[in-house]
Amino acid sequence: MSDLDEVVRRLDALEAIEEIKQLKARYFRFVDEKKHDELEALFTPDADLVTDGISFKSPQEFADTIRDLTGAAPSVHHGHMPEIQITGPDTASGIWAMEDLLTFPAGEGAPDGHRGYGQYREGYKKVDGSWLIDSLVLTRFRVDPLDNWVADD
Amino acid sequence: MSDLDEVVRRLDALEAIEEIKQLKARYFRFVDEKKHDELEALFTPDADLVTDGISFKSPQEFADTIRDLTGAAPSVHHGHMPEIQITGPDTASGIWAMEDLLTFPAGEGAPDGHRGYGQYREGYKKVDGSWLIDSLVLTRFRVDPLDNWVADD
Amino acid sequence: MSDLDEVVRRLDALEAIEEIKQLKARYFRFVDEKKHDELEALFTPDADLVTDGISFKSPQEFADTIRDLTGAAPSVHHGHMPEIQITGPDTASGIWAMEDLLTFPAGEGAPDGHRGYGQYREGYKKVDGSWLIDSLVLTRFRVDPLDNWVADD
Repeated sequence: MSDLDEVVRRLDALEAIEEIKQLKARYFRFVDEKKHDELEALFTPDADLVTDGISFKSPQEFADTIRDLTGAAPSVHHGHMPEIQITGPDTASGIWAMEDLLTFPAGEGAPDGHRGYGQYREGYKKVDGSWLIDSLVLTRFRVDPLDNWVADD
Repeated sequence: MSDLDEVVRRLDALEAIEEIKQLKARYFRFVDEKKHDELEALFTPDADLVTDGISFKSPQEFADTIRDLTGAAPSVHHGHMPEIQITGPDTASGIWAMEDLLTFPAGEGAPDGHRGYGQYREGYKKVDGSWLIDSLVLTRFRVDPLDNWVADD
Repeated sequence: MSDLDEVVRRLDALEAIEEIKQLKARYFRFVDEKKHDELEALFTPDADLVTDGISFKSPQEFADTIRDLTGAAPSVHHGHMPEIQITGPDTASGIWAMEDLLTFPAGEGAPDGHRGYGQYREGYKKVDGSWLIDSLVLTRFRVDPLDNWVADD
């Protein structure tokens, strides 16, 4: 391999890491901006999705669940301190710290909201030139209760 | 364009993204370290600045307002999950998630502090080799009240 | 220096910045995953470690103190907005914003937990090809009290 080929290989890896960070940034942003169709499109169609031990059948079920549960209630989801590893030409893995503030509309039978702290372990796949989330396991290790959300008058 | 030119172009873009992240890091740090003159110098002189619908005439007015409102009260401002796009040789755009904890000194007529959550949408310009903030729109979408700050005895 | 040498020098710097970010990501993760031996191994053996004015004799004392104080209580430590500067072929400096949520097991004489906000100022050294933390000064500038932790039944 020439010196220039080696340089290009290293550049490819750095660019891939940045692209995956921005992929995950859109993930959090689309959840909180309530862009659920755009959220669904960030995953491979057969992505494995597990949050706190609950598995989802598809990215669509994942996005629909978030849409149905949160409604108009504002939510906050932030990722921190990524550890992205490029594991092949079109594959990568990542670990992220997570903090979220998840409330649900008040009402009979409304689930409890929380401020939560946890960790994502993920796999990524490059498909047609774009990085997508291919697997996601979210584990929260601290959850503090939060009041349900009531719309302003 | 030679292969090496292409490599340099890609390197330039990655370096610009890192420089803009560090520009925004100084922005948050200078706010919380109360370095208001240094804060002002992070903007182009005619930068457009809007926070929650309030426009500022200049970076100086923006920095002075923060200085006057917060006084000695400690504040916390963090940005998360940047999406930086290089849009030209000397221009870029960015989206950041934001969390802040803003208190004001207790006293008659003191404004209410908050823990807030929102989003920055920004434009950047490279001037004389340094990236500066050329436009800033901050929109908070959740604000929880926080007690005013009282100095320790 | 040839154009390619210059490109390699710039690539080295960008890679070092990413490696140091991942070093600090492991630091936070190992604290919260309670991997105290792995935490200790992130430092040079004679690293200078100071948190809120308290000096530690060694990385081992630092890791042991965290292990002893927190026990099984969940903790949360996140870093934000890094400013990493490469200062030599094997040296670098960094500034990080910090937020932590530190609780201790309830019991007689238990120290007070807190939600804290502060800043790290650090030095890094590359040893045998790996970046390590060579100095760490953590200063918290706001600390809000938090209840002690009680294990679930």
